[in-house]
Order: sequence, then structure tokens, then C-alpha cells
Amino acid sequence: MLSKGGCPKNALSIRDALEALEGRWKLLILFSLSTGNKRFKQISKEVPGITDKTLSKELKNLEGNKLITRNVYDTFPPTVEYSITAHGKSLEKVMDELHYWGLAHRKKIMGK
Amino acid sequence: MLSKGGCPKNALSIRDALEALEGRWKLLILFSLSTGNKRFKQISKEVPGITDKTLSKELKNLEGNKLITRNVYDTFPPTVEYSITAHGKSLEKVMDELHYWGLAHRKKIMGK
Repeated sequence: MLSKGGCPKNALSIRDALEALEGRWKLLILFSLSTGNKRFKQISKEVPGITDKTLSKELKNLEGNKLITRNVYDTFPPTVEYSITAHGKSLEKVMDELHYWGLAHRKKIMGK
Repeated sequence: MLSKGGCPKNALSIRDALEALEGRWKLLILFSLSTGNKRFKQISKEVPGITDKTLSKELKNLEGNKLITRNVYDTFPPTVEYSITAHGKSLEKVMDELHYWGLAHRKKIMGK
């Protein structure tokens, strides 16, 4: 698309995507949930560097964008787990391309 | 990749990519430069909502990441133009997938 030149319609869709995925955490949280349902503390461990406050905010935002669901189980005390939705899983190709590009970028910039 | 489950190596490459593309502006600036070399004011017009201060900061960051080049022409007064590099153009597939996903997301969330 870049080689074919930009058009305003595409820029709008890319803007929508960037807004839903803004920041450095959301895709990493989804990536963590892609291996299975997890509790807050488990996600926190798998996304190094994130604070509890930020993780809490990001989880709410992801839920609002229908990318994850928050499941409350009727145990005592109640158990809360997060799971990725089908819509969240539909980011697979975006993640794949980011992965390939990230590898190439690391080579280019860091020479590793 | 999401469906196959995450692995730490992939998360690292995705983290690298997200760091290089962080925020809502960089891909939109690259998108603007994908149609040809442009001067500061032209980019500013094509990326609605960006301030001059932010654009200036983002251009420096993109240059540092070898995604664009800043070309100074020996005119009077000197002319400055920005162009996308081959490395910047290599984001095409990422942009394509973001575009498709952004369209689906708009449909899902906004019902448009």
C-alpha cells in the first residue's frame, strides 16, 4: 500500500487501528493472553516493566474495544480471569508482520 | 502466531517494532511520505491534528530509526525535504495489515 501511495480512506483505517492499539502495552498484553486465559498477576509477570496501575487501565481499555473479556468465576473468593476474544485474535496478521519487521529493524539499527 | 501461542523471542521483536513506531503519529507521517518527498508544512497538512512541536520531534525520531531522511538542498534560502527510506517502505505489510484490521475494527466497534 505504501508503494501504491496513500489515500485518505486508508489513513483513516490505520488511524482507527492505531488508536485501538495505542501505546507499547496493548499488543504485548494480547500476546500474553494468546497462550491462554490468565489472571491479573500472571499477565503482569509476562509483560515485564508494566505497573499494576497501567495494566489495570490497559485491560479496561482492551475490554472496551472488545479485544479481551473479563470473566468472573463464582468461587470464594471470586476468581477473575482475562481471555482474548475472536476480535483480539484477528490481530494475528498484524502481530506477525510486526514480528518480522521488528526482527529486520533490530538487525538494521542494532546490528544484532 | 497468536493462535500458535506466544514465545519470548517473538515478544521481543514485537516490542522492538512497537518502540520504533510508538504513538499515533509515526505511521501516519510515513504514510504521508509514501506518496513522495515533502516539506515540513506539507506533512503537517496531511497529518491532521499534529502540532509543529510534535511533528518536529517525530521527524527526528524517525530519522534516528533510519525510516526517513532529511534532505537539505543548496538553494537560497536552503530547502529542506523529507523522504521515506527503503527501511521505512519495508513497513508496507505492517501498514496493510493495520489497514485491514482497522476497517474490521471500525465495523465491530462503531457499526460503520
